Amino acid sequence: MRADEMAEEFPVVTLDSDALDAARLLGTHRLPGLVVTDANGCPVAILPGSQVVRFLVPPYVQDDPTLARVLAESMADRAADKLSGKSVRAMLPTPRQEVPTVNRDDTIVEVAALMARVRSPLIAVVDGGGMVGVITVSRLLEFALPRA
Amino acid sequence: MRADEMAEEFPVVTLDSDALDAARLLGTHRLPGLVVTDANGCPVAILPGSQVVRFLVPPYVQDDPTLARVLAESMADRAADKLSGKSVRAMLPTPRQEVPTVNRDDTIVEVAALMARVRSPLIAVVDGGGMVGVITVSRLLEFALPRA
Repeated sequence: MRADEMAEEFPVVTLDSDALDAARLLGTHRLPGLVVTDANGCPVAILPGSQVVRFLVPPYVQDDPTLARVLAESMADRAADKLSGKSVRAMLPTPRQEVPTVNRDDTIVEVAALMARVRSPLIAVVDGGGMVGVITVSRLLEFALPRA
Repeated sequence: MRADEMAEEFPVVTLDSDALDAARLLGTHRLPGLVVTDANGCPVAILPGSQVVRFLVPPYVQDDPTLARVLAESMADRAADKLSGKSVRAMLPTPRQEVPTVNRDDTIVEVAALMARVRSPLIAVVDGGGMVGVITVSRLLEFALPRA
């Protein structure tokens, strides 16, 4: 089993994509995160869903969730305020979370080894610099386990 | 929006569940992780998919993925060897990753605040000690974002 046989097509956004559209992709497709590419299609960062949530919640509420009740805005209004007119670039953590990548002819054990080491929920499969697809943890397990 | 209105039913395993069955659940249901409960149904740990992968890959290959090619066993044979006859308890990391929990009447902002703070892909919703359901990051975003 090679990496490109396990890779799936996956929604990808660029650094300049609309922040609200990207957040919606995570919600509607039930994804653990998005791969962010540069203008040339090369993967440059992962945007985990939890990072989008961090971006929406004010730091003082993250530190003390009991303060959540004093927040006057609704969550949807807050999300609209924080995300409208912003790009994906603005939501990324600093420093950026690098995209773990494997080559298309890497073996399933090599993919598993990288995933185990970096504890990432997804790995990008590349050929040269371009994206072939993505392998999630659950996809890997689908192929790694003996048939029932 | 209250936590129990967002909560979903979610496959749950106990500490004594079969390790291979639990790993298969992650693969077939495309889940980011499982909630592990004790015999009374109280959540005691999260089993992330990446932890199962860590359990399958020998430490020396995690440290140096180029050694993956010297591994004689196939991934499926290795998974069968490592998981057969084991319980979920044996796969959990030490120390265990605690399950972040919210009460069923907590607000969406309180759920988001906790999720942001602990960077967990899922939160258990409890009533007393028992599980009501689970909220994933993507589920939260589904409710947190303004309608398109």
